[in-house]
Amino acid sequence: MKAGAREIADSPLEWVGGKGEHSGMILSSRVRLARNLKGHVFPWRADKKELSVCSERVRSSIRSEDSLKPFSIFEVDALDPLSRGVLIEKHLISPALAMGGPGRGAAVDGRGIVSIMINEEDHVRIQAILGGMSIHEAWRIARCMDELLEKLDYAFDSRYGFLTACPTNVGTGLRASVMIHLPALTHLRRMGKLAVDCGKIGLTVRGMFGEGSDSPGSLYQISNQVTLGQTEEELIEKVSGAALGLVRQEEGARDRILSERGPGLEDKVWRAWGLLRFSRVIEAREALELLSLVRMGSEMGILPQVRVATLNALLLDIQKAHIQARSATELSPEEIGRKRSEVLRKALATTGGES
Amino acid sequence: MKAGAREIADSPLEWVGGKGEHSGMILSSRVRLARNLKGHVFPWRADKKELSVCSERVRSSIRSEDSLKPFSIFEVDALDPLSRGVLIEKHLISPALAMGGPGRGAAVDGRGIVSIMINEEDHVRIQAILGGMSIHEAWRIARCMDELLEKLDYAFDSRYGFLTACPTNVGTGLRASVMIHLPALTHLRRMGKLAVDCGKIGLTVRGMFGEGSDSPGSLYQISNQVTLGQTEEELIEKVSGAALGLVRQEEGARDRILSERGPGLEDKVWRAWGLLRFSRVIEAREALELLSLVRMGSEMGILPQVRVATLNALLLDIQKAHIQARSATELSPEEIGRKRSEVLRKALATTGGES
Repeated sequence: MKAGAREIADSPLEWVGGKGEHSGMILSSRVRLARNLKGHVFPWRADKKELSVCSERVRSSIRSEDSLKPFSIFEVDALDPLSRGVLIEKHLISPALAMGGPGRGAAVDGRGIVSIMINEEDHVRIQAILGGMSIHEAWRIARCMDELLEKLDYAFDSRYGFLTACPTNVGTGLRASVMIHLPALTHLRRMGKLAVDCGKIGLTVRGMFGEGSDSPGSLYQISNQVTLGQTEEELIEKVSGAALGLVRQEEGARDRILSERGPGLEDKVWRAWGLLRFSRVIEAREALELLSLVRMGSEMGILPQVRVATLNALLLDIQKAHIQARSATELSPEEIGRKRSEVLRKALATTGGES
Repeated sequence: MKAGAREIADSPLEWVGGKGEHSGMILSSRVRLARNLKGHVFPWRADKKELSVCSERVRSSIRSEDSLKPFSIFEVDALDPLSRGVLIEKHLISPALAMGGPGRGAAVDGRGIVSIMINEEDHVRIQAILGGMSIHEAWRIARCMDELLEKLDYAFDSRYGFLTACPTNVGTGLRASVMIHLPALTHLRRMGKLAVDCGKIGLTVRGMFGEGSDSPGSLYQISNQVTLGQTEEELIEKVSGAALGLVRQEEGARDRILSERGPGLEDKVWRAWGLLRFSRVIEAREALELLSLVRMGSEMGILPQVRVATLNALLLDIQKAHIQARSATELSPEEIGRKRSEVLRKALATTGGES
């Protein structure tokens, strides 16, 4: 199964390419739809047989669609732990789904845009991710997937909308989210206040890695809290507006930092570059912090341009399962740290940034 | 006077070239002779007129020697503060002499080997510095200088030997010292104990920068405490033997560190390299620590060879007065820090060390 994990690690992920507007700051835009099958209890209450039946219905519905031919469908229980780890790191499946169990599976397209989780919290979870500010486009793709699968006969209530295992998803079943890099706002300690402000208008701000208001690598996910009482378009618009607002605030914060401590900032960015280019062993958390500085420095013209696609890819390639998946042997934590340095050095060696 | 300071900063210093045995670890070997003129009180008790007379006697004695023609002789009071700072950083004059005052001056040769201080603590202080373990050669040069100046008629007592202002210098008036780089012994916290051991056999261990037992940059000066009761040759031999013993102990300590924490050491060395190659502002102390790691890493084959002469020159070129002397404008402390980074980047950019 080792080859499997490596293949999964090497498979493309559309958003990593860095297309889409504001792709320097906005890493990705994601829309997720929660759906359930009419006449079946939700997965957490279903027995093995019912999970199996639901899984088979979803799978055959996908297989029967000509346009979904490129999708590969798999059962989680058939995957080794490493492959599951890689899929989690790629955000193609959730840690909950990765636990496995009867009828739990997923389908992913060949370009790393769409993934469909089967029998996670809900029977069906459709997700579409694109690079940059592409939330409207991601919504169009998710809706299109949704229409293709509609023949499954979804559990739908004319008053509440789509029915879901967790009440927070009832209604549209839609969660729109944007992954955004906000190092200057983080540095100025503004994220706590901004998270509160977002909460007031029904949006949630979470760290990409961990839940704190200061996320390692200054990466945050902005998403809608409520899925009920607003149309899909309204929700998409709200997340999009908030994300663009944060982009403007981050730009302002960068200008402020640059004017207030120009040479100090320049030094910090270049030192991060020096450490990434030459360290021999590094923890994921430190690497994330240094990459965050290099990303900002590259966008601000402090460093010669480092390609967004290179920086995006590194966010995945420095993760533990990705590193292990690409190694022929079982690595100790110390060896993982050394490989991580190697990955960073190789990726950044060819990208300008000298002297 | 600005051009003067720059000229002094740019003038050669023989030991920097890194010739001599063990020049990786032993930066320089120095012999200093303290002498006074018979019939004159010591400088600290002398009045202006007497200092003037002594100064003139020494100067004319130097000028009258054909072999000393290349020496330039100067009065401290005629130098601007920056030039004095550069001379101190080059260890060609002492901070005490740099205070200036009547009749205080110095003579230095054109190659940066010999300097003669006039009316410092003693009327005459002859110093010869060479690179690497060259203490016997430095002694030969100092003795030769001493013989050339003997016609001055030194204050000499048949029982005590040469008479000096401070009793610790009475006798031979000789201080032999070796500047040695001991990062592994410092890392293993062995310097305190070694300094005590050296004390027991009449040797002193001091930090090159500051007095603590852990010196910034792990640079130490080993010298004889007592000048009385032993011949010059015995003193030279003792300092030489102790320095070579420390070289062997340092080698052992490096082997031990390498075997105990190989990858961690490699990482530390490469990170130091990355920071020196890319920082934009840096304090002298941090630069010294990083240069110490790079020097050790280069000698241990962790980094591609960095020339000893490059590393030696940087120890001077990152000092405040050297940086200021080479600038056209008056620099703020922050600007000094930025220039220091620039000096390091330029010097190290061309020396291998990539990836």
